[in-house]
Amino acid sequence: MPHIDLPPLPGIAGLLAGYPQTAGPLNSLAETLLRGPSPLTPEQRETIAAYVSRRNECTFCFQTHDAVARWLRRDDGSGATDSLMTVLLAIADKVRVDGRSVTADDIEQARAAGADDRTIHDTVLIAAAFSMFNRYVDGLNTFTPTDPGDYERHARALAENGYLRPPI
Amino acid sequence: MPHIDLPPLPGIAGLLAGYPQTAGPLNSLAETLLRGPSPLTPEQRETIAAYVSRRNECTFCFQTHDAVARWLRRDDGSGATDSLMTVLLAIADKVRVDGRSVTADDIEQARAAGADDRTIHDTVLIAAAFSMFNRYVDGLNTFTPTDPGDYERHARALAENGYLRPPI
Repeated sequence: MPHIDLPPLPGIAGLLAGYPQTAGPLNSLAETLLRGPSPLTPEQRETIAAYVSRRNECTFCFQTHDAVARWLRRDDGSGATDSLMTVLLAIADKVRVDGRSVTADDIEQARAAGADDRTIHDTVLIAAAFSMFNRYVDGLNTFTPTDPGDYERHARALAENGYLRPPI
Repeated sequence: MPHIDLPPLPGIAGLLAGYPQTAGPLNSLAETLLRGPSPLTPEQRETIAAYVSRRNECTFCFQTHDAVARWLRRDDGSGATDSLMTVLLAIADKVRVDGRSVTADDIEQARAAGADDRTIHDTVLIAAAFSMFNRYVDGLNTFTPTDPGDYERHARALAENGYLRPPI
């Protein structure tokens, strides 16, 4: 049971519906970070979001963004974890634990794999933002569906419409 | 030296100036969370932000928000850490480490000290948001001023104008 009274919607959906003032900037941040202009594709960015959420053991966020990444992969035909993504996920994991642990050597390896400043910036900010979303969802003990179908439906809507439309 | 090329401004200011697309929702989130309608005063909310930043050892964020809280305290005449703030800071510290560690008993203690749903929500989201801001600032190794006067000037502007005006 959630720690506070919320509309009966899973995970962050209940929080966004129950607290619309903060939902505005939170949805806007998700849309800008995961769908706005970036050298990283939406699928690569959703993969970073899912990875950070999995490592933080936030089941709702992991299941959601992992399913969104899979929907986008179907459209893109992409999905191979190449050397660039391997290095970026390692940086995201460091940011998740403690931002100060990212070294000049980590950044150099990312550049050698093809990352520019914007790629590095977006990776760090996505990892930081999901360090927030994971804590928001779990810190208030929101409802985590167990039926994979629930995630698939929600993820398909997010893959197709992004984060500025209210969930179904 | 920052890990990426940024305008020569301290801490998050360089990131907000260098990456205006994400600056929009980030500033809007800070303004809504720390200055928008809430049962908590701006000074109480800045105190939670400073506390989380200190515990995460993010020097720039701690020095900034601690100085903002002090500026607001001068105006409010408030500032005593009462039993409510003691319980809320304990919840914020748990969220900072892992959202899942907040228990029903923690929430019950907060309610006994006078917290309503919105107070609990805002505390958890402020702690979660500074878990993001701290990682963004430190993960990209932004410049941390050592002169306390730099923080006082910046903090006074934030205390007086909030987060939607560009820093000086």
